[in-house]
Amino acid sequence: MPVATSTLDALCVNTIRGLSMDGVQAANSGHPGLPMGAAPMAYSLWTRHLRHNPKDPHWFNRDRFILSAGHGSMLLYSLLHLTGYDLPLDELKKFRQWGSKTPGHPENLLTPGVEMATGPLGQGFATSVGYAIAEAHLAAIFNKPGHDVIDHYTYGICSDGDMMEGVTSEAASLAGHLGLGKLIFLYDSNGITIDGSTDITFTEDIEMRFKAYGWHVQKIDGMDIDAVDRALTEAEKIKDKPSFIIARTIIGYGSPHREGTPEVHGKALGADELKLAKEALGIPLEPTFYEPEDAVSHFREAVSNGAKWQEEWNAKLAAYTQDYPAEAKLLKASIAGDWGTAWIDALPTFTDKLATRKSAEAVMDAIMPHLPTFIGGSADLWESNMTHLKDAKQFQPESHEGRNLAFGIREHAMVAAVNGITRHGGLRAFGSTFLIFSDYCRPSLRLAALMECPSIIVFTHDSIGLGEDGPTHQSIEQLTSLRVIPNMNVLRPADGNEASACWKIAVESTETPCLFALSRQALPALTPDTVKNHPAEKGGYVLRPASKAKPDCVLVATGSEVQHAVAAKDTLEAEGISTQVVSMPSTFLYDKQSAAYKESVLPKGVPTVSIEAGATLGWYKYAQAFVGIDHFGASAPTEVVMKEFGFTPENVVAVAKKLLGR
Amino acid sequence: MPVATSTLDALCVNTIRGLSMDGVQAANSGHPGLPMGAAPMAYSLWTRHLRHNPKDPHWFNRDRFILSAGHGSMLLYSLLHLTGYDLPLDELKKFRQWGSKTPGHPENLLTPGVEMATGPLGQGFATSVGYAIAEAHLAAIFNKPGHDVIDHYTYGICSDGDMMEGVTSEAASLAGHLGLGKLIFLYDSNGITIDGSTDITFTEDIEMRFKAYGWHVQKIDGMDIDAVDRALTEAEKIKDKPSFIIARTIIGYGSPHREGTPEVHGKALGADELKLAKEALGIPLEPTFYEPEDAVSHFREAVSNGAKWQEEWNAKLAAYTQDYPAEAKLLKASIAGDWGTAWIDALPTFTDKLATRKSAEAVMDAIMPHLPTFIGGSADLWESNMTHLKDAKQFQPESHEGRNLAFGIREHAMVAAVNGITRHGGLRAFGSTFLIFSDYCRPSLRLAALMECPSIIVFTHDSIGLGEDGPTHQSIEQLTSLRVIPNMNVLRPADGNEASACWKIAVESTETPCLFALSRQALPALTPDTVKNHPAEKGGYVLRPASKAKPDCVLVATGSEVQHAVAAKDTLEAEGISTQVVSMPSTFLYDKQSAAYKESVLPKGVPTVSIEAGATLGWYKYAQAFVGIDHFGASAPTEVVMKEFGFTPENVVAVAKKLLGR
Repeated sequence: MPVATSTLDALCVNTIRGLSMDGVQAANSGHPGLPMGAAPMAYSLWTRHLRHNPKDPHWFNRDRFILSAGHGSMLLYSLLHLTGYDLPLDELKKFRQWGSKTPGHPENLLTPGVEMATGPLGQGFATSVGYAIAEAHLAAIFNKPGHDVIDHYTYGICSDGDMMEGVTSEAASLAGHLGLGKLIFLYDSNGITIDGSTDITFTEDIEMRFKAYGWHVQKIDGMDIDAVDRALTEAEKIKDKPSFIIARTIIGYGSPHREGTPEVHGKALGADELKLAKEALGIPLEPTFYEPEDAVSHFREAVSNGAKWQEEWNAKLAAYTQDYPAEAKLLKASIAGDWGTAWIDALPTFTDKLATRKSAEAVMDAIMPHLPTFIGGSADLWESNMTHLKDAKQFQPESHEGRNLAFGIREHAMVAAVNGITRHGGLRAFGSTFLIFSDYCRPSLRLAALMECPSIIVFTHDSIGLGEDGPTHQSIEQLTSLRVIPNMNVLRPADGNEASACWKIAVESTETPCLFALSRQALPALTPDTVKNHPAEKGGYVLRPASKAKPDCVLVATGSEVQHAVAAKDTLEAEGISTQVVSMPSTFLYDKQSAAYKESVLPKGVPTVSIEAGATLGWYKYAQAFVGIDHFGASAPTEVVMKEFGFTPENVVAVAKKLLGR
Repeated sequence: MPVATSTLDALCVNTIRGLSMDGVQAANSGHPGLPMGAAPMAYSLWTRHLRHNPKDPHWFNRDRFILSAGHGSMLLYSLLHLTGYDLPLDELKKFRQWGSKTPGHPENLLTPGVEMATGPLGQGFATSVGYAIAEAHLAAIFNKPGHDVIDHYTYGICSDGDMMEGVTSEAASLAGHLGLGKLIFLYDSNGITIDGSTDITFTEDIEMRFKAYGWHVQKIDGMDIDAVDRALTEAEKIKDKPSFIIARTIIGYGSPHREGTPEVHGKALGADELKLAKEALGIPLEPTFYEPEDAVSHFREAVSNGAKWQEEWNAKLAAYTQDYPAEAKLLKASIAGDWGTAWIDALPTFTDKLATRKSAEAVMDAIMPHLPTFIGGSADLWESNMTHLKDAKQFQPESHEGRNLAFGIREHAMVAAVNGITRHGGLRAFGSTFLIFSDYCRPSLRLAALMECPSIIVFTHDSIGLGEDGPTHQSIEQLTSLRVIPNMNVLRPADGNEASACWKIAVESTETPCLFALSRQALPALTPDTVKNHPAEKGGYVLRPASKAKPDCVLVATGSEVQHAVAAKDTLEAEGISTQVVSMPSTFLYDKQSAAYKESVLPKGVPTVSIEAGATLGWYKYAQAFVGIDHFGASAPTEVVMKEFGFTPENVVAVAKKLLGR
């Protein structure tokens, strides 16, 4: 079938456009505009720069590609299909349909070759910074003279929407500071968003802005394949700055009535305009989802190239293994996510009264030397979060081998970066800030859960118990609002032993993010010191059995309030009320237990009181009466606030007795 | 008592420092560093520029002052006290104590003269953009030749932390685009954050960055009172750009061992260092909280100046009232928050099957012409949110009279701006985006609730019902996670009539933010058309009574799922199960009803099933069985997704019968 384009490049680019238009048209839903405008730059990147292996999407040293503008998913699906990933044409025909591998926005769990879920704007960009941190850190700790076993780029395509989101600014500032030279973003500057021209709201000088962040910036014609190629080559040469390539493009290129307009952004073209667009681009009208052989075979060179690249890397790794057997062993284990067992043996136990942020610090001090491929830090609250790794350097431009990450007051970019490091593989990552600021990073927390990415975030100062800083800093609804995210494990230990057990849970998690909620204030040691096999692993457990086989009453508490449940039990028992105390550090894990186990912990029909210094809404699932707080807090010393708001053994006793009608 | 400072200015500045140090020391908690370093610039602003009236903190045309760096609260409390606000010295002595007017971070509800709650970084800065929008809009719609009845500045002080937060970047880009010439920020650039020098993570060129946003930028010595004065004077002359004054300061100035170090940021100086600092600054050691008479009387000139400024304005308003009686009437009513009743008469009723985003659009079309001092817009989703005001212009640099705000893809800055416009007074404001993106703006939503600021946010596409866009865009946990915020009214109407009633609730709200959750998909009209007096005002109500006096079963549903409850009732009744259907558009309002009313809606002991296309966790409070979704969604057409995940009458029937053991 004759094609009216004169060159192979144009044929390939138009093949992407054709598949993308047809996919959106078949679904009558989706975003044709971005794939049509960004096809040239994506083609240039994917055929001339990206080193990947379609037959092994998990090849460790592959270049990472992140489509931050996830709404342009048909661009990515077209590329994956054409270059030979396990994504048959039939899947492209089922774009946005139930059970397909081609959802509306890219999802790493569904589609081979999709590095991460994107769509919520800014997330792809910010997470990419994590990928680049991971590459830089692994290279710094593993590479040796003559042995560059870790050596790849992180490429991305981002959009106007990404550029407006705050998380992008945080991440860009951080990446510029850290000098992440192997991070390269193409900015699809098409001047159009859903509501019209970007002129209606987005008139900043983005070139100047990125220069201000310390990036290497180029401005090019994004419709010119060779210009893109040259810019990428230039960017790859810059070793000490991330690169930002502002590529001017035409959204919906080829659609005679819609190119360059908002109409082509997020709607199918419709049969008539699709026909005109195909005619304009020289794409045959039939068959739909047209793949000219010449284009396919050119794209598919990725398969042989990929095999070759991976083989070369395998040889490198073999030579490295020869010369540096210990390092190679650690690298391979880390890639496999095998953290050994030495860290488990090192888990400390506790007997002293300590804030859980302090006991968790002691846990980290004990286990982190045995987990050398863990990296993390704080959003400018190291002293408060107590997550600074001892005897370890900071990850700075001149010291990418450092394990301590100073994220700055950028909670959102922090969690996105932690996600990126974790998704990269070879490393596990953690971040930390106050629990209240979980609100600032919620979109990235949710994405971790959705991607089944086991990010670890240490939230401290987890309630009104933080005291004087007052209601702007006191969590009320945060515990509940985090627990309600699917696949999110919120861990609120009651003491040091539970903190130790919770760290074990977090390190061993493979597909669930773990969020610590730790106290600022000191808490007594109350739970078993069997930290390697602690009942906390079941999420909730009987901490103090009732005096009778069938309790009259159950008190279920978490974190800093477990002590009040234990004290209240004594009073209640003294009054003849047989009371079972349950510690519930993780409702997520508890909910997964068997019905029989749950019946032993929270027996049906037994009056149950929950005690947690937070909102009560989430506790109706487990209890009938509540010691909680459903209004904002107050600024005053911890003991005063806690007492004024009813977090005392006396009040627990009163609430329990009221529930029992005593 | 002799003071070793040679000038009145220095005496005044050191008085602020002394009060701030003593306040923090008395509490043994707080942040002395910022007040000590920023005292000169604050003094210059407050005594030479700020037009305010300490005896009437609500004087409408006052300059607004926002301390975005809320942790420096003692600076603000010192200024308020010294200039004559109703904040006695005794309150400063009770800094951070239970029941005082001087909480750890500023709270508008507690302290006269505090415009807004600050502390969560970036919020003050971003909210200030809203204040400036409000001033510009009111000036544009009310001022007439010779009558500048609205004419004030919005000043702020921000910190390094503010500058790193993403919301600040969003807001700064928006403010630059909008040309908000009367917004002036002093940036307390002290080079220090909690974890150390800003060099460890924050090395961007902030001057260049703000120029890129389109701001007028100056760089000065922030310790030089006259330099600050000159910079402010210069900034006030710039009419078409917001102003950013980078003021280099020394954190903890005067503390011999701690100035310029992180140690002075967030801890009391301690008795010894405090003594040395006072000696260095020439502040007498006794009494503590020392207020030299000369300083006080100089600061207190604000009282007579304020009275004079307000009198002048009263005269202006009188002349305006004379010449423009209709406009003056509207202005006064809007300042009083009196929106009249014409809009209530205009509330439409509905009989057709319509998406609630569409019926809500019809409501807005009907009422907004009667609410001329309402202003708002969308975060680049006007076409989807359907919140563009008909026959109204956009608020753009050349048209500040426009009522339609193009916020850009900046959800967080949008809500902050809505808060600022609303807190400014004289206007009510709304924003809109998809419900999933409530995660992006959560810190500002929380702050609205904390400030008792009745912001209105219209969230559409409120569940998996949005279909093809898939799990990254499908809300699951959002409804619950928003409802659990104290003082937050989430409104999820079932049809157009409820949407009409919910808009009435939102407009009439005076101290609670209202969040709409609206469907993308069409919903049948099911509820009464008595929209002026709709039972939805009680939050939850019996939509379909059971066939028997005492129902066998209650189905409680919200929004798009109410239709399934109604359909399921018919099947259940046909099988002899007397079923009451409850529509629950607002759990917030329902929870406020009397026990007797609640017993009539959700009678105790009657098996109850909740039906909502969202997480079940929040429904255990009201029901024992659940039709909900506790995992992420999927990309497919709406009807398919809804059916696959069990949102059908058949499944509601099945769940109800299982609960009843039938």
